[in-house]
Amino acid sequence: MNADSRAYQEGEDLDHGPESMSRTVDLNCDMGEGFGLHTFGMDETLLEVVTSANIACGFHAGDPATMRKTVRLALSKGVAIGAHPGLPDMSGFGRRHMEITPDEAFEMTLYQIGALDAFVRSDGGRMAHVKPHGALYTMASQDEDLAQAVAEAVYRHDSRLILFGLSGSALVRAGERAGLRTASEAFIDRRYTDDGRLVSRRHPDAVITDPEEALRQALMLAGEGKVVTRGGKEIPVQADTLCVHGDTIHAVEFARMVRDRLIQSDIRLQSPGSAL
Amino acid sequence: MNADSRAYQEGEDLDHGPESMSRTVDLNCDMGEGFGLHTFGMDETLLEVVTSANIACGFHAGDPATMRKTVRLALSKGVAIGAHPGLPDMSGFGRRHMEITPDEAFEMTLYQIGALDAFVRSDGGRMAHVKPHGALYTMASQDEDLAQAVAEAVYRHDSRLILFGLSGSALVRAGERAGLRTASEAFIDRRYTDDGRLVSRRHPDAVITDPEEALRQALMLAGEGKVVTRGGKEIPVQADTLCVHGDTIHAVEFARMVRDRLIQSDIRLQSPGSAL
Amino acid sequence: MNADSRAYQEGEDLDHGPESMSRTVDLNCDMGEGFGLHTFGMDETLLEVVTSANIACGFHAGDPATMRKTVRLALSKGVAIGAHPGLPDMSGFGRRHMEITPDEAFEMTLYQIGALDAFVRSDGGRMAHVKPHGALYTMASQDEDLAQAVAEAVYRHDSRLILFGLSGSALVRAGERAGLRTASEAFIDRRYTDDGRLVSRRHPDAVITDPEEALRQALMLAGEGKVVTRGGKEIPVQADTLCVHGDTIHAVEFARMVRDRLIQSDIRLQSPGSAL
Amino acid sequence: MNADSRAYQEGEDLDHGPESMSRTVDLNCDMGEGFGLHTFGMDETLLEVVTSANIACGFHAGDPATMRKTVRLALSKGVAIGAHPGLPDMSGFGRRHMEITPDEAFEMTLYQIGALDAFVRSDGGRMAHVKPHGALYTMASQDEDLAQAVAEAVYRHDSRLILFGLSGSALVRAGERAGLRTASEAFIDRRYTDDGRLVSRRHPDAVITDPEEALRQALMLAGEGKVVTRGGKEIPVQADTLCVHGDTIHAVEFARMVRDRLIQSDIRLQSPGSAL
Repeated sequence: MNADSRAYQEGEDLDHGPESMSRTVDLNCDMGEGFGLHTFGMDETLLEVVTSANIACGFHAGDPATMRKTVRLALSKGVAIGAHPGLPDMSGFGRRHMEITPDEAFEMTLYQIGALDAFVRSDGGRMAHVKPHGALYTMASQDEDLAQAVAEAVYRHDSRLILFGLSGSALVRAGERAGLRTASEAFIDRRYTDDGRLVSRRHPDAVITDPEEALRQALMLAGEGKVVTRGGKEIPVQADTLCVHGDTIHAVEFARMVRDRLIQSDIRLQSPGSAL
Repeated sequence: MNADSRAYQEGEDLDHGPESMSRTVDLNCDMGEGFGLHTFGMDETLLEVVTSANIACGFHAGDPATMRKTVRLALSKGVAIGAHPGLPDMSGFGRRHMEITPDEAFEMTLYQIGALDAFVRSDGGRMAHVKPHGALYTMASQDEDLAQAVAEAVYRHDSRLILFGLSGSALVRAGERAGLRTASEAFIDRRYTDDGRLVSRRHPDAVITDPEEALRQALMLAGEGKVVTRGGKEIPVQADTLCVHGDTIHAVEFARMVRDRLIQSDIRLQSPGSAL
Repeated sequence: MNADSRAYQEGEDLDHGPESMSRTVDLNCDMGEGFGLHTFGMDETLLEVVTSANIACGFHAGDPATMRKTVRLALSKGVAIGAHPGLPDMSGFGRRHMEITPDEAFEMTLYQIGALDAFVRSDGGRMAHVKPHGALYTMASQDEDLAQAVAEAVYRHDSRLILFGLSGSALVRAGERAGLRTASEAFIDRRYTDDGRLVSRRHPDAVITDPEEALRQALMLAGEGKVVTRGGKEIPVQADTLCVHGDTIHAVEFARMVRDRLIQSDIRLQSPGSAL
Repeated sequence: MNADSRAYQEGEDLDHGPESMSRTVDLNCDMGEGFGLHTFGMDETLLEVVTSANIACGFHAGDPATMRKTVRLALSKGVAIGAHPGLPDMSGFGRRHMEITPDEAFEMTLYQIGALDAFVRSDGGRMAHVKPHGALYTMASQDEDLAQAVAEAVYRHDSRLILFGLSGSALVRAGERAGLRTASEAFIDRRYTDDGRLVSRRHPDAVITDPEEALRQALMLAGEGKVVTRGGKEIPVQADTLCVHGDTIHAVEFARMVRDRLIQSDIRLQSPGSAL
């Protein structure tokens, strides 16, 4: 029944061949990023939209009460649950790069995964994936040693977990080397360079602000595994999962539009683990 | 040699009857209470002495690096590992009572158990027990609702875990009701009232400062399940595990004396779970 | 215009006698309780309504960036600034009682006052008052030793500061003994017992939910220094400052209604220090 | 009387000319880096040796109780007190670089200075200097914008404060531009490159491990304002203050040797502010 709520257009299941594999995509969103009395985002509404929830684990955001509540909400909606470990930087929301060693990356990832998993299992669920947060995500996308440390922490905790990482990054490669399943993440509202990287946020055109353009990019990523770069080239980008945001009501509305458009285009929305 | 020192008189195993059950005792100690560069206690030496290690989980002390290091050390010495969850009060070392709800007690206990367990399992071990720390221990000894919340968190995480609690306390009762195995903890260096409670620390004679007297109490607790109270009465006290300290070099020396005296008196030292 | 709205009927200043003293009141509100990305309350709007702002100092809420921003906002609106020190309990928002010693109360109060004062002075302002937050406020209202410790910390930092405390409480008395000016705080939306205490929140009628009844209580407190108790008696309550809330848009709207009604009733709104 | 304990060989005062200006030096040490029950370093002994104490302010280490105790100890020994603000990274001891903005550097520096100053002033003292800690020190030595932000925070708090920074660094330059007095810090046990920088810790010969060599470097820095580089060149290095360590008993013994040798060589030990 969980599976149902994550897998749309069930009727197509039998006849889609290998090429239609790319016509399945996951929608993921960060959640549970409140802290104490501070609420953050609109988790409940978002859980009607996404297929994977990345739940904060107490280092950059989240606390035990918020984690438990968010886990239960996700379980009740049948959304796949992932740990969203971050740097120990509450006041910077885990977004400031910190010069950590691979050992520290391993330890902070494992600690947070373990803590969240306790909540998931105590409510009868199973953690499906891990997506590092903020600066930890970025650092592990670029630095092979940090990527390997994060991947090992995930693998050592549970080798069935799926590691979410930036498409084409060191993190995805490290996950594969470690023996993990991975999900390559692509971005709906970020522009890509001709060589498949994200345009740096320092550039004025880093973010796509026109909703229609972003929707087109979502469709092209999910449906064809391609993107039109800032330079106008069409290049391949593996897009197993698309990231949507839930920090404003407008973000949630846009996420719903993305979801509706994908479904209308016969793209199946499901979490990577639910296909197993 | 280490293994030897923790499972004595193996040959007796077959013929000891119910009365000899009381002639086995666990020695437990809090560990891993360093934080960042701050070291605390003499964990490595202590692990030669005790049979159970209660490892701090990051709320009152401990951090991921210290947890990992301490877990590995305990595994290498064959000492049983327990989680030592505390209140979220680093600057007060988890010793200040906080007015938490049963839900909060459940959540903070589960979070910390999960985090420590990830380190234990990632190094191939199995967590054996949980002993709440400081004010959480005291509060759960006295308050039935908090006791039940802690016991439920332990049970929900792993029903095979052994809950350590003050002998005769609400916490031990709650553990039993929840379906957990429990270990009743007694104190070598604390005086007891005639009705089996610890003399409050506010009284000048709360703590036994004479080492010989403390050693006699250790032997009587472990060997006969009895204690001589402050009023001079001999009363029964269930003593499955005795708490020793490791925060000073003198404490460690005394712990070693306790251990030697128990062994000389034919009392077997072993962790509660190792008998299974 | 803002200045206007905070110092009314200036012309009356010379001829108001003792009885008209009670016809001046302060409206205070907690602010700056965001943390990192988490915003909390509607500080900017509220600053148009109140005459005193109690700014969180980083222990129960607030961080250096939020403190600086809130201080500047309050300075720009001409609202009196106070430190709002709390217990070191971010995840519990400083609302959970903690068993702290008077020394600890002194130290955590002084630390937080000093930190906030640095922001106030660096922007050319002067801190006017201190109001302890949450459980620290409640504990210092009831416990003479904690009250004295808090009062001493305030006095030692700056003897001109005004200590805000619950009307009739140990905190106000301790402030007076320490040589501080004090402001007795009364509550618009809480019911009082016949002996002048707040009805405990455990009782169903602790909070006044009818806006009209609350407005009447505000007027009676500010205008006559009296309140109608839960038992129907009219008793005196010193009300130098009234607490309003800003955590929801409705709370802010109600605060504005309180302010408008007080002004319509010829009650002057001004912070306690501004009369000097 | 405070002055006495910081100023040796008073008799020389009248006849030393400009060239003897370099024959005065400050010895500074980090202190108060305990946290809760965790003690760190041997502050009390060290205070007999140094002329300036840099006291941790709660972000990388230290808590209100430790700050108060350390401030009082320093005051009782007549040692000049400085704030030692660090990055908000307790588990990393403020040693891990973090990608902070100049605004964040300003805010965290000002917050911590304000908090420490409250303790100093409440005990009748006056804060003399500020020395950023760990990664904040290093980052502000290299990055002009961060340096300026730190210097502005110090200046805005109290323009009489002396900013301690790495000799020849952006931090010292920023302090001078901001209108602050500065003290250039040199290192007794670190090797210098031919262009006056510290040899990176990544190189095997970064640290001088031979005590005699370190003592010679201390004397040469303090007495002549020169150092022999790793390449064998003699270069000028402004050395207003020398950093000694107190984290081990050996470090304290070495600090005492440094002090004795300097005094024997007719170098006056005094804090930069005490000469005023």
